[in-house]
Amino acid sequence: MAADWESRAKAKRDAVLNLIPAEWRLKDIPSREEQKDVTGSYIQQFLTEPEVEITETDAVGLADKIAAGKWSAVEVTKAFCHRAALAHQLVNCLHEIFFEAAILSAQALDDYYAQHKKTIGPLHGVPVSLKDQFHVRGVETTMGYVGWIGTFEGVPNDPRRASFESEMVRELRNLGAVLYCKTSVPHTLMSGETVNNIIGYTWNPKNRYLAAGGSSGGEGALIGLKGSPGGFGTDIGGSIRIPAAFNGLYGIRPTSGRLPYEGMANSMDGQNSILSVVGPLATSARTLRLLTRSVLSQQPWLYDPLVVDMPWRDAEEQAIYEIIKSTSSKGRLSFGVLKTDGTVNPQPPVQRAIAMVAEALEKAGHKVIEWKPPSHRRIVDVVIKTWIYDGGKDVHGAFALSGEPISLQIKSSYGDKPKEEYTASQIAATNIAKRKIQKEYMDYWNSTAEETGTGRPVDGVICALAPYPAARPEKYDYYGYSLWVNGLDYTSVVVPVTTADKSLDQYAEGYVPISDLDKKTFEAYDAEIYDGAHVSLQIVGRKFTEEKMLAIAEYVGGLLGK
Amino acid sequence: MAADWESRAKAKRDAVLNLIPAEWRLKDIPSREEQKDVTGSYIQQFLTEPEVEITETDAVGLADKIAAGKWSAVEVTKAFCHRAALAHQLVNCLHEIFFEAAILSAQALDDYYAQHKKTIGPLHGVPVSLKDQFHVRGVETTMGYVGWIGTFEGVPNDPRRASFESEMVRELRNLGAVLYCKTSVPHTLMSGETVNNIIGYTWNPKNRYLAAGGSSGGEGALIGLKGSPGGFGTDIGGSIRIPAAFNGLYGIRPTSGRLPYEGMANSMDGQNSILSVVGPLATSARTLRLLTRSVLSQQPWLYDPLVVDMPWRDAEEQAIYEIIKSTSSKGRLSFGVLKTDGTVNPQPPVQRAIAMVAEALEKAGHKVIEWKPPSHRRIVDVVIKTWIYDGGKDVHGAFALSGEPISLQIKSSYGDKPKEEYTASQIAATNIAKRKIQKEYMDYWNSTAEETGTGRPVDGVICALAPYPAARPEKYDYYGYSLWVNGLDYTSVVVPVTTADKSLDQYAEGYVPISDLDKKTFEAYDAEIYDGAHVSLQIVGRKFTEEKMLAIAEYVGGLLGK
Repeated sequence: MAADWESRAKAKRDAVLNLIPAEWRLKDIPSREEQKDVTGSYIQQFLTEPEVEITETDAVGLADKIAAGKWSAVEVTKAFCHRAALAHQLVNCLHEIFFEAAILSAQALDDYYAQHKKTIGPLHGVPVSLKDQFHVRGVETTMGYVGWIGTFEGVPNDPRRASFESEMVRELRNLGAVLYCKTSVPHTLMSGETVNNIIGYTWNPKNRYLAAGGSSGGEGALIGLKGSPGGFGTDIGGSIRIPAAFNGLYGIRPTSGRLPYEGMANSMDGQNSILSVVGPLATSARTLRLLTRSVLSQQPWLYDPLVVDMPWRDAEEQAIYEIIKSTSSKGRLSFGVLKTDGTVNPQPPVQRAIAMVAEALEKAGHKVIEWKPPSHRRIVDVVIKTWIYDGGKDVHGAFALSGEPISLQIKSSYGDKPKEEYTASQIAATNIAKRKIQKEYMDYWNSTAEETGTGRPVDGVICALAPYPAARPEKYDYYGYSLWVNGLDYTSVVVPVTTADKSLDQYAEGYVPISDLDKKTFEAYDAEIYDGAHVSLQIVGRKFTEEKMLAIAEYVGGLLGK
Repeated sequence: MAADWESRAKAKRDAVLNLIPAEWRLKDIPSREEQKDVTGSYIQQFLTEPEVEITETDAVGLADKIAAGKWSAVEVTKAFCHRAALAHQLVNCLHEIFFEAAILSAQALDDYYAQHKKTIGPLHGVPVSLKDQFHVRGVETTMGYVGWIGTFEGVPNDPRRASFESEMVRELRNLGAVLYCKTSVPHTLMSGETVNNIIGYTWNPKNRYLAAGGSSGGEGALIGLKGSPGGFGTDIGGSIRIPAAFNGLYGIRPTSGRLPYEGMANSMDGQNSILSVVGPLATSARTLRLLTRSVLSQQPWLYDPLVVDMPWRDAEEQAIYEIIKSTSSKGRLSFGVLKTDGTVNPQPPVQRAIAMVAEALEKAGHKVIEWKPPSHRRIVDVVIKTWIYDGGKDVHGAFALSGEPISLQIKSSYGDKPKEEYTASQIAATNIAKRKIQKEYMDYWNSTAEETGTGRPVDGVICALAPYPAARPEKYDYYGYSLWVNGLDYTSVVVPVTTADKSLDQYAEGYVPISDLDKKTFEAYDAEIYDGAHVSLQIVGRKFTEEKMLAIAEYVGGLLGK
């Protein structure tokens, strides 16, 4: 007989699947051996031509077409619901489906448009997917925990269940966005792979031997399959950027306090040394811009006490456009390039991507310097401490609600049971260590004004987001490349660069690993398995540089032909 | 024989006094019975006429006169050094004196001006006093701890002693400010009175039966005596606003992250649930504006990782000027007025001040509504928890360095020895409680748009800063009126309103206290003692409204004839 948690998980899993209309159900799901890549023509075969056209249009294009009256919100919504339903069946990327509610709200938008001859807001009719930390009325939030099924964040009989909405959900509705699904996460959220006991493992649609990434893995997989034109994830250690990178998408980790997190479910809520932040992932940089700018137009600082009073600043992006257009020596951008953090070298496809971007920038007349920052290891040590302040009390408490087993990915951080908690003094010491390294880093950044020839310090840092193009299951062993950004609270945008190529991407013969972790990374590489996988990088900016970094990301993406 | 700490304290106390030139030493210091008020004509008698004229000019006026070549930086500096030296002898307000270095830097500024025919920055030649948490080269920082004498923050033989400078000191020097003294604080900083074993008790110059306030009490007393045109204090529970209010000054507690705290000494450093913030106190609102705006012109967010990238926003103050000039119904401001927080009623002079301000605003055509916010008590409970996260480990450790006794004012919060520390989970729960009450409060604030008739929520809240005009020694029992602002991280400006008047300010006959704390407050009132004391209020704005609240404070001060 199945354990209680198993039957509850299965019931939930089946209930989600059963919300997919019969005509959208796939009869046979091919194995990964049969069909490694389910993107592109593979998934297109199940869609009509208009559905393909709609779902392969980015959010900016969708908003334009709907605003021009060429497409209705309902037809757009239905097309994305269909494609999302297919995506879920192929790679397990959804936790909640509410297509009916979505079509009703799309209809209301169409009615508004018919009556007023204008849109309700900049996202009028645009489907937006949400990581399963957002509370949306009509559905629940499990965050991958079996013990949260039927509850509000684990609390039974709480009236907020399926009725309370997170602040950003309210804002997205005001803007005209259509909400239709919530996407999968690793239980606890604390992994770069997406696995839990409800929906299982979320696979990388481009290469189903690989992880979709995490913790916003469902977002990454769904958008990667174009089952969503853009959606919101969260990032405390890479959780927006990892799935964006692994799925060949753009994704931004804003500085904390820029976008509203108010009213979202979370792990270890109240840990405030390093905050999780919310931000978009999408198929285009301009979609990230549209979503970020739109949310800021709602003045989230009046509704979320942690948001800073900082509207979208046109002047900041304009400054980048001017530099790019200019021809003087100061009319160029400059970048630091980090080839390795000294603990783990990126795998060959990622190294090649770094070289490609540096070369493209230099060719376009920009300055590239070697990035020689203060120790990333020290930053990473601080970040990891903040994850275990409570010794795992919060996450083990959530597992204990149902008695479900803990995935291997989470056990590696939190063990089998709670450990001793940090004391106030230990937390204070960690906060001081964080501030000190942040200060050192900003001083180093300032100092690069001497090297760039632009009169300014570097405009961004080109860096791996992970040592892997995408992690292989249970082989995500090193987070240093994403974590340093969280430790510094910098703005970072992931940009897709290329795909892995087994004929090009090989470790040098006789390669000698530089550490145990590097040895693991070296051993985890398999050119055959990785062949064709997305390879992405991040471009990191200073705090609160969202406008600037999005402009740069769009420009760099353009240079790379993305 | 004196204990070791006593002789070390006396040596330090004498060393500071001995830095005052003989010709500036006072032979007889009158007792408070002989001379209650040492401001105005009392202190003027020891100064020349030009010295009086200079020192009774505010910082904006000083900057203008120096920029116009009418006064030299050296003569301005010398005048303030003289008056500061007198102030210290009268009320014990200085921890460090460096007049010689100040005169040298003033001379360098004069030389620059002579050579370049322009100023070096907006504070060219303006003396600025600093609370003894700022590190300034050439002098030490004791923060009132005997155990810190001869050390760097308690660490012996640290090369940073008397050489390291806090980030804001660097910025003030860039701006042309002349630094000449550091002002007294209560040991630990955690009191609204200023007392320590080095300089003793800092008295209120307007009424030497009363406290100068704290923890920036030396600033309050010094500026109150016009021994400084403006200076910087810090505020984690009222420590800028209390001494500003008690001394009839303007003072602003900015939102955390607006001004740079980097590289300053502090108590319980690393506690990051509620941060201490730095901000100016001065004799005029326009001086607060000058100092704040000048520091922001230095782009502190590039040098302090905790500062937000937010320059001075002219548009925010302009909007207030426009409203004030306008004559439409939306062309008015609106204010919430909090007469009592329900735990302690303000003493009669403070109640009268609240009525005066409300009346002046209404008379000028603005809207005043009763402020009925979520429970201030819940906010205050959160704030007080953050002070004892480490159970007093940090502060007791600092006392233990010398074996000095703990003042009564500090013992009431921290006891005789360290208590148990908070765990990570308890701290997280406190952070969540803080965020929840912040959210409730902002929702309430938003809701007042329904009541104001301006189409906007209230522009500010008029509120007592303490239940007292100024506290009587060892009778500062209730901090609720300042703490709620720290709990919400709101911007608040103190505005001087009136002086206590024994003929007007009496509790109603048969007054029944509303709580034990209110009973203490009632019993601590003595119309005779308080007669003539400054009475001030705070005007509280939302987060990051420094420009707006300074414009409002200047306007309200003008309405009151201040």
